[in-house]
Amino acid sequence: MQLGMIGLGRMGSNMVRRLLRHGHECVVFDRAEQTVAALVKENAIGSSSLAEFAKKLIKPRAVWLMVPVGAVDDTIADLLPHLDPGDILIDGGNSYYVDDIRRATELTPQRFHYVDVGTSGGVWGLERGYCMMIGGESDIVKHLDPIFASLAPGRGDSVRTPGREKAEGTSEQGYLHCGPNGAGHFVKMVHNGIEYGLMAAYAEGLAVLKAANVGKTRGVIDAETTPLRDPEHYRYDFNLADIAEVWRRGSVIASWLLDLSATALSHDPTLANFAGRVSDSGEGRWTIKAAIDEGVPAHVLSSALYERFSSRGEADFADKILSAMRYEFGGHVEKPAAGQAS
Amino acid sequence: MQLGMIGLGRMGSNMVRRLLRHGHECVVFDRAEQTVAALVKENAIGSSSLAEFAKKLIKPRAVWLMVPVGAVDDTIADLLPHLDPGDILIDGGNSYYVDDIRRATELTPQRFHYVDVGTSGGVWGLERGYCMMIGGESDIVKHLDPIFASLAPGRGDSVRTPGREKAEGTSEQGYLHCGPNGAGHFVKMVHNGIEYGLMAAYAEGLAVLKAANVGKTRGVIDAETTPLRDPEHYRYDFNLADIAEVWRRGSVIASWLLDLSATALSHDPTLANFAGRVSDSGEGRWTIKAAIDEGVPAHVLSSALYERFSSRGEADFADKILSAMRYEFGGHVEKPAAGQAS
Amino acid sequence: MQLGMIGLGRMGSNMVRRLLRHGHECVVFDRAEQTVAALVKENAIGSSSLAEFAKKLIKPRAVWLMVPVGAVDDTIADLLPHLDPGDILIDGGNSYYVDDIRRATELTPQRFHYVDVGTSGGVWGLERGYCMMIGGESDIVKHLDPIFASLAPGRGDSVRTPGREKAEGTSEQGYLHCGPNGAGHFVKMVHNGIEYGLMAAYAEGLAVLKAANVGKTRGVIDAETTPLRDPEHYRYDFNLADIAEVWRRGSVIASWLLDLSATALSHDPTLANFAGRVSDSGEGRWTIKAAIDEGVPAHVLSSALYERFSSRGEADFADKILSAMRYEFGGHVEKPAAGQAS
Amino acid sequence: MQLGMIGLGRMGSNMVRRLLRHGHECVVFDRAEQTVAALVKENAIGSSSLAEFAKKLIKPRAVWLMVPVGAVDDTIADLLPHLDPGDILIDGGNSYYVDDIRRATELTPQRFHYVDVGTSGGVWGLERGYCMMIGGESDIVKHLDPIFASLAPGRGDSVRTPGREKAEGTSEQGYLHCGPNGAGHFVKMVHNGIEYGLMAAYAEGLAVLKAANVGKTRGVIDAETTPLRDPEHYRYDFNLADIAEVWRRGSVIASWLLDLSATALSHDPTLANFAGRVSDSGEGRWTIKAAIDEGVPAHVLSSALYERFSSRGEADFADKILSAMRYEFGGHVEKPAAGQAS
Repeated sequence: MQLGMIGLGRMGSNMVRRLLRHGHECVVFDRAEQTVAALVKENAIGSSSLAEFAKKLIKPRAVWLMVPVGAVDDTIADLLPHLDPGDILIDGGNSYYVDDIRRATELTPQRFHYVDVGTSGGVWGLERGYCMMIGGESDIVKHLDPIFASLAPGRGDSVRTPGREKAEGTSEQGYLHCGPNGAGHFVKMVHNGIEYGLMAAYAEGLAVLKAANVGKTRGVIDAETTPLRDPEHYRYDFNLADIAEVWRRGSVIASWLLDLSATALSHDPTLANFAGRVSDSGEGRWTIKAAIDEGVPAHVLSSALYERFSSRGEADFADKILSAMRYEFGGHVEKPAAGQAS
Repeated sequence: MQLGMIGLGRMGSNMVRRLLRHGHECVVFDRAEQTVAALVKENAIGSSSLAEFAKKLIKPRAVWLMVPVGAVDDTIADLLPHLDPGDILIDGGNSYYVDDIRRATELTPQRFHYVDVGTSGGVWGLERGYCMMIGGESDIVKHLDPIFASLAPGRGDSVRTPGREKAEGTSEQGYLHCGPNGAGHFVKMVHNGIEYGLMAAYAEGLAVLKAANVGKTRGVIDAETTPLRDPEHYRYDFNLADIAEVWRRGSVIASWLLDLSATALSHDPTLANFAGRVSDSGEGRWTIKAAIDEGVPAHVLSSALYERFSSRGEADFADKILSAMRYEFGGHVEKPAAGQAS
Repeated sequence: MQLGMIGLGRMGSNMVRRLLRHGHECVVFDRAEQTVAALVKENAIGSSSLAEFAKKLIKPRAVWLMVPVGAVDDTIADLLPHLDPGDILIDGGNSYYVDDIRRATELTPQRFHYVDVGTSGGVWGLERGYCMMIGGESDIVKHLDPIFASLAPGRGDSVRTPGREKAEGTSEQGYLHCGPNGAGHFVKMVHNGIEYGLMAAYAEGLAVLKAANVGKTRGVIDAETTPLRDPEHYRYDFNLADIAEVWRRGSVIASWLLDLSATALSHDPTLANFAGRVSDSGEGRWTIKAAIDEGVPAHVLSSALYERFSSRGEADFADKILSAMRYEFGGHVEKPAAGQAS
Repeated sequence: MQLGMIGLGRMGSNMVRRLLRHGHECVVFDRAEQTVAALVKENAIGSSSLAEFAKKLIKPRAVWLMVPVGAVDDTIADLLPHLDPGDILIDGGNSYYVDDIRRATELTPQRFHYVDVGTSGGVWGLERGYCMMIGGESDIVKHLDPIFASLAPGRGDSVRTPGREKAEGTSEQGYLHCGPNGAGHFVKMVHNGIEYGLMAAYAEGLAVLKAANVGKTRGVIDAETTPLRDPEHYRYDFNLADIAEVWRRGSVIASWLLDLSATALSHDPTLANFAGRVSDSGEGRWTIKAAIDEGVPAHVLSSALYERFSSRGEADFADKILSAMRYEFGGHVEKPAAGQAS
């Protein structure tokens, strides 16, 4: 079928490529003309304005937005004058599901349809397919099924989940209509919240392995630091690349994120190219807010989020308060950083 | 080659079966005679005493212990009189690596060799192979290589880790000599610590999805509870089985633990057969102790462990203290549990 | 000066009493006539309707609302028709500071003044005075100063903070104009967030002391549980009431919350009257949301909040997922609860 | 009565001073002669060797050790030859209670008595008195009562805990015999664990207040960072010194640690003299190990400890792993640190 795509960054472009390969027709638009031109060479239909973009689409139009979160509302506002009742807007970015609910509430009286699609797959999606979590009206989601089916990974050679034999639906194909508007991005939000937790679990564990040689060096005795009681228990120099690799085979903690960790460690087990300042996008934060609204404990997911904040220096003031208190009650003076002269 | 196996529980028996299938000779012993008899039917060589067991093994003997953690030392003590210098003891259970260091220190002067093997794979190992993390002397571990190679999953059809092309070693086969004694169980310990964290991340995320319908029911206004500000944001009845399934295809959080979650949820999305009392074995605890000794932050792994404690009621006294303080400063009386008459 | 008080619950009534003792005139209203009558006996001026209440107040009226969070907006709406431009509305309850910002934005164009006051002190305020955190326009807050000064504890016999000698302002008196609208409740919100953290720290520590006798009873050896390695290290039967008491004198952790814990434990060190279901009001939740918006790590405050959720059974589904995963990968069956027959 | 004191650092010297003021006789020793000389000027009895020290003490000798944790065992070994059966050794430092149990086990057959005393009070003890938690044999602890009574703060002007009227014992005086050997340091260990939690609660809360102005500056829109949705909710420039001060009067979170925070913030609300590298001594770590052995959840106390590790850069490798994973799955490149040119 035909789909219009607005926003031809890495994600948007690759989705268009995957759709073209599956025989769909794609009308594309982006403010950066050269990205439009690049896809036109690969048989997409280009457009140089939203007006032209809309004109080239068959009604009811299906328009997929793949733009930064902060640009979705403006893009919709710019686009609406060129659309007609019955047209479908699909937000495939990382919108907050609360915005989906608001948008649907605003667009429905104007007889536009709104679909929210949470998409996982990153740079690997072109090759592996995109896992999609979808929210919106049932008949509209059904209407778009050929698009979702092509973008999704399909069943592949994954072992079938026992008990699934009689289950219906598309989840085994890698896409799912999760519920009414906002449901897609809600599920994607939690997906990313889980992702933060998984990543942190591997990171903490690997860090414990990395430091398993502290018994070779630590043994200072002073009034501020407790000496390591059993230095002979911490004299291992582990090969983290090999360990991540061995866990990929048959262990309980095998996963795609572990595969990626193994790749990174195989390139450089010291990860010297990274400073350790970890960004966070909105989903991790929103997941915690949802957990709090629901009254559901989320120790692990919160800790994973906060670690990212800390990695960017956001705990510094709190740490200074701790040092200041210690100075006040015990006259404790901060020690110099390791490597500094004292 | 030949291996002696002591302890024919689920793990030990299946390992013997896998070795037999690969053409190895296995001498087996267990206090429960019927388990010995069962394996003899499958071509293992049975024995009815440790003396007989030792007698049937060719020197230098290779003896694999697959017994409960608390029984390892006693089993070794009972077995030693029947062994000779040069023989090899392999502890394949879940020993604390600190005990490995101690045992090696005790056994070496007597000219016995000790190898510690952390094993992951659970009930699935017979079919999938066992991921093994190994500690001990290099030449001894090398001597046992045919055993490890047969128990391990092998490379399988996993995509090769980029950058691995020139790497040597056995990690791609699913087993790894991690370092001197204790190294195997140290790595396995951290593996399980990570496992706890991963499991908790999925569990918390799925619980947030489960409760995404609280807006349909909650709205009480009183002095003790804050009302849900935006109940219209929490009106989703998610199908958790479908969601776990869709995440298996192409998403960033795909993993074997997710596969298992999908299986469990496909059988019963309410998990009504479970009460939610979660056991913990030693590894999760020891991982945190190691993190503390090393001075490495482990927020996520600790939280995952504590959640298991809490699930068994171990937070009850702390909770009572909170209620008691609230009563003292504000006269707050505890609310009855949901479902109780007030 | 004169103050009108709406809402004569425990907090509102005691504030009126404290103001009367300091020679202020109080006009009071509550839907419950008998609470009005009770205060009239103590020399407050009663009223039986909002109209009468407003009539008895001198312009510009100063009206203090001490009603449940969920009733503030309705009360303001009911009251406004009886007020005149220039009148002052004071919300002394536990409003979300975001609502203060909204209310001020709505009321200012109508030429009403709005002041938000976060109040700490609970049932002890009548005697000890109320610690107040205030947000609003400077001149209005200044106008109300006699009220705040009387409600506040005053300097008392607290040791003066070194460096405070030249500081100006009212913070040493126990009340503070924190900033523009919302500032008062923002500071109170964080105050309560901290309170949750402090309470949890005491509760966890006391629970560790309570369980310091586990070495007397635990020692089970099976495949599911790791035995306690050093039971001889856990054979203490501590007297928690005495310990809380001794910490009150000269220790680093002395505090008013500790005083309250000591009181509770002196009545009954087993706290048998409490079930351990701990309520949470909005401030703890909002503190975490603010921390997340600001990107500030809040491990401790979050954990304290989540523990309250868990105490009410809100972790149950997540725990069931953990049990279900363990069953799938290892065939682990949940153990019966302690005290149940197996 | 008479007491021998070994170790004349800040703590030891001030304890001697307090005892002298209460009319006790103190024989003192320290390797640093000038510290001995200083106390001799204040009427202590000096000694220049352990032999001389022992000689000047009346039997049964009572010897208080106030030396670094790592030096206790050596000091005891050096001292023992100069002692006689029946003499009493008191460890007033920060020993691990497990060492107390070991030492008592070793010393008892030699007919020496061992007493462990956890001491809180820091540099303020001389003036405020020391809160002491004591472990050892009942008759020995009773014999030393005059010493403890003088070192302790005494009842002071603290309000009496309701229900305490009929209670016996010394806890209201600020010292307590907690149980057999190790009990004193166990209780002190948990005391410090709680201290870490309390400090972290204040630090996190104050950091949330500090960052309450982020709405004035943040608003970047890109693919990596979620914009602050409601910047108008975060435009407060709080005066932290005033806020800490106001909380000291009548609020639920008043405490001695808050007093100290107020002092530090009154000197410099930016805490610019501190880098935020926070040391941790052994007690915080041991508390978590005890919690784990006991199976008691300790989310808050653990988080507080880990935050100290993080403040010293110990999370850096874990953070690099997170960045490396993000790079692998999404091509995400780390952002430059704030203030760096990009």
